[in-house]
Amino acid sequence: MSSKHPKTAITPTRLENYPEWYQSVLKAADLSEHSSVRGCMVIKPWGYGIWENIQRVLDGMIKDTGHQNAYFPLFIPLSSLQKEAQHVEGFAKECAVVTHHRLEKDKNGQLVPAGELEEPLIVRPTSEMIIGQSFSKWVESYRDLPLLINQWANVVRWEMRTRMFLRTTEFLWQEGHTVHATREEAQLEAEKMLRVYVEFARDYLAIPVICGEKTPSERFPGAVNTYCIEAMMQDRKALQAGTSHFLGQNFAKSCDIQFRNPEGELEFGWTTSWGVTTRLIGGLIMTHSDDDGLVLPPKIASAQLVIIPIVHAEESKQSVFSYCEKLAADLRKVHYAGQTLRVIVDKREMRGGEKSWSWIKKGVPLRLEIGPRDIEAGAFGLLRRDKPHRESTQLSASEIVHRITDILDDMQNNLLAKATAFRDQHTVKIDQKADFYDFFTPKKEDEIHGGFALCHWNGDPAVEEKVKEDLNVTIRCIPLEGAEEPGRCVITGEPSARRVIFAKSY
Amino acid sequence: MSSKHPKTAITPTRLENYPEWYQSVLKAADLSEHSSVRGCMVIKPWGYGIWENIQRVLDGMIKDTGHQNAYFPLFIPLSSLQKEAQHVEGFAKECAVVTHHRLEKDKNGQLVPAGELEEPLIVRPTSEMIIGQSFSKWVESYRDLPLLINQWANVVRWEMRTRMFLRTTEFLWQEGHTVHATREEAQLEAEKMLRVYVEFARDYLAIPVICGEKTPSERFPGAVNTYCIEAMMQDRKALQAGTSHFLGQNFAKSCDIQFRNPEGELEFGWTTSWGVTTRLIGGLIMTHSDDDGLVLPPKIASAQLVIIPIVHAEESKQSVFSYCEKLAADLRKVHYAGQTLRVIVDKREMRGGEKSWSWIKKGVPLRLEIGPRDIEAGAFGLLRRDKPHRESTQLSASEIVHRITDILDDMQNNLLAKATAFRDQHTVKIDQKADFYDFFTPKKEDEIHGGFALCHWNGDPAVEEKVKEDLNVTIRCIPLEGAEEPGRCVITGEPSARRVIFAKSY
Repeated sequence: MSSKHPKTAITPTRLENYPEWYQSVLKAADLSEHSSVRGCMVIKPWGYGIWENIQRVLDGMIKDTGHQNAYFPLFIPLSSLQKEAQHVEGFAKECAVVTHHRLEKDKNGQLVPAGELEEPLIVRPTSEMIIGQSFSKWVESYRDLPLLINQWANVVRWEMRTRMFLRTTEFLWQEGHTVHATREEAQLEAEKMLRVYVEFARDYLAIPVICGEKTPSERFPGAVNTYCIEAMMQDRKALQAGTSHFLGQNFAKSCDIQFRNPEGELEFGWTTSWGVTTRLIGGLIMTHSDDDGLVLPPKIASAQLVIIPIVHAEESKQSVFSYCEKLAADLRKVHYAGQTLRVIVDKREMRGGEKSWSWIKKGVPLRLEIGPRDIEAGAFGLLRRDKPHRESTQLSASEIVHRITDILDDMQNNLLAKATAFRDQHTVKIDQKADFYDFFTPKKEDEIHGGFALCHWNGDPAVEEKVKEDLNVTIRCIPLEGAEEPGRCVITGEPSARRVIFAKSY
Repeated sequence: MSSKHPKTAITPTRLENYPEWYQSVLKAADLSEHSSVRGCMVIKPWGYGIWENIQRVLDGMIKDTGHQNAYFPLFIPLSSLQKEAQHVEGFAKECAVVTHHRLEKDKNGQLVPAGELEEPLIVRPTSEMIIGQSFSKWVESYRDLPLLINQWANVVRWEMRTRMFLRTTEFLWQEGHTVHATREEAQLEAEKMLRVYVEFARDYLAIPVICGEKTPSERFPGAVNTYCIEAMMQDRKALQAGTSHFLGQNFAKSCDIQFRNPEGELEFGWTTSWGVTTRLIGGLIMTHSDDDGLVLPPKIASAQLVIIPIVHAEESKQSVFSYCEKLAADLRKVHYAGQTLRVIVDKREMRGGEKSWSWIKKGVPLRLEIGPRDIEAGAFGLLRRDKPHRESTQLSASEIVHRITDILDDMQNNLLAKATAFRDQHTVKIDQKADFYDFFTPKKEDEIHGGFALCHWNGDPAVEEKVKEDLNVTIRCIPLEGAEEPGRCVITGEPSARRVIFAKSY
């Protein structure tokens, strides 16, 4: 092959340049684009469709665990944000601040901010403090507990380096906020919602995640304990895909969330918060996509099937179109993953090959090409995005209708199995410092290397700092599933009770 | 009755003080509350549930008419907002402006805004300019048209006088934005989406609305034509409940949205935008509620039925609870308005009467009280929110399951019929200036008065200014359904071709 004719739809490939491959997939799949506002992205319909599916499914799971949705203000008065010292310190460097409430012409006729606010307002980077204000009014007695609330919203964190879906100035998320009467109950809640995230990532996104506890240096500002789910991307880096915080009584104290217990005494509540964001879409892309573009798990795909009418002569066009529409209508009655199937009939005027490639790049799970001869023969080639591009299965229309959910399930399972195998293949126990450094050092520049290193750690933040400085590696989490296993810290040789996961990360 | 014992659950009543009644209903139904941020409200779960239903239904209607959802940035650079002169002038007085991107301690240790932005960012009051930037990239050829996009988002307008749901600094909405190849097509789109709003308001919110065109002085800043739906509240004031704008080529020119036509020539696109907001919830409340609190149309209610177990003795508690849960489970399988029924079993420890009243105030359409004796008799009293509070229908469990959708439909229709009759009763043709002034002048302070006055108007903005100044009355719209009917302007006596609607308004 000449280098002028790339074999793949996406250039560069993952091996050639992983970060650029990621940007190319976003573009080729028409998921998103940069906006004129620094670090803010536009989520295009094909990308937003994924988010709508994530919202719908996860919203159901959040409600099934007893939570209700509500909506709280976008703005937080500076004085409120300051009430929790650690919290405000954690977010101070990345706050968008509203200082004026109108525009006015200056003497040169230029519009400038006017109407200075008495108190600056912070565009919410997270909503603990503004929701806490309401909670302090909503909670009076132990009978009001647990208080289980969720919000779907946009938040803003002024990040210095942004990357679409993975780290953007504005992003979309859900944030759960709960109050409980006891430490134990709040602790259980934080863990329960982490399990919901694990289940959602596994069963819908086909992303196998490890759940664990963050080390103290990586905790959410103000939290007593932060739990997380960590996924491995195809460049073997970790992506933190969701977090759940046990906040102890810290926020209850700063927001004055008190309740009267059955004995009539006032106590502070115990709170949690937990969230996942549009970053999940970045994780989805980097887990499953290949050098031909996006690959979407069927359960969460914006559409599961595209029907491509193949028309060579104008006179057969209408009959092919109506055959396709009829089959699409039948398929749209089929239930899959709690919804009816999402089916597109692509009638654009465009060459058939070009059309197919556009859908390969967009990652639609199934493609069905239908021409006059196929209709005559009563058999159609069904193509799967997780199989080679020309590998088709010949099926009759009724077979397609009857077997499509099985085929989608098979693809969904296949993606999860593949991602799990990849992760397991690149998860290794390392016990020697030299091996550790070797593992995280590329042999040549930009080479994909490393993975999850399961190592002993002495619990000292200085060790974390050292490996971060030397290798840009951090402790992703202390796995909840990990067994107690006495050993020696991979860096210092000091005693340790269990292994943690070290990795490079997003 | 002594004035110390109000007959109604809500004080004051509508007749006593309508604006205060409205605030009391919000509180009694637990829909919302004020936040610490000026003009921003908290939408509590019972209120947010209504918005979720509005979103779900309207989103389906928007997609059924061929639109796709996407998401665009919260912030608009000042330079972008300025590109359309009329547009920025219309919003300049109510813009929240972000000027800094972090917080820093000053010499007194106080956190203050730092990191001044090179260019101020406006928190979107509406998204024409930021979406237009993307559209100018998305549209190249006539083949890319029509471009039909919708966004669900929060927007901010710094209003001087706010009222929960009706006018808040931050509010939630959907905003549709489309580009078309011809004037006619864009014009048809603006009217089509207005019809969607009419249908949605009528069939789901049970609000009869009049659709019409705004006069030039009431147009959206930058629009060629603004259409609206107007509803009558129970104080006979008009509520603008949704708008749809034909933007001509104004925004296409300022955002450079150009396409190549089939002849290969560049043309500017023709755009529209249209939106409804959380204000619809305010309209819902003021259309149907009564002096006992909220009344919710079944199709849009956060829950349609509450089952209230009546337990007098501890030993029957479990059996009554399980009977209620069993019946609730059966009812949750029933489909109504495209969803399964939303049923609550209220097991709170509280007196039965108090419990019933709490649900009356919250406006749940149906209540079902179930005690041990009812279970024994196999008949239960079903109570409707739109009937007197003690008027119940005795039904067996299976009758309830089988007849509930008919009963809900009947209530839904009843609310629409009632609201329509009220509106028609207070819509009058007025031809004399003296009658006009009399119609809009209360006989005693704060008395509910007026309504929709169908009058001739000479087309002069000076007349609009005059009646606004004299009576605080505006032209709500030029009805689309109104027949041509020559007459004379109610104020000046000059010739006029058709009647318009004058009213006081929110």
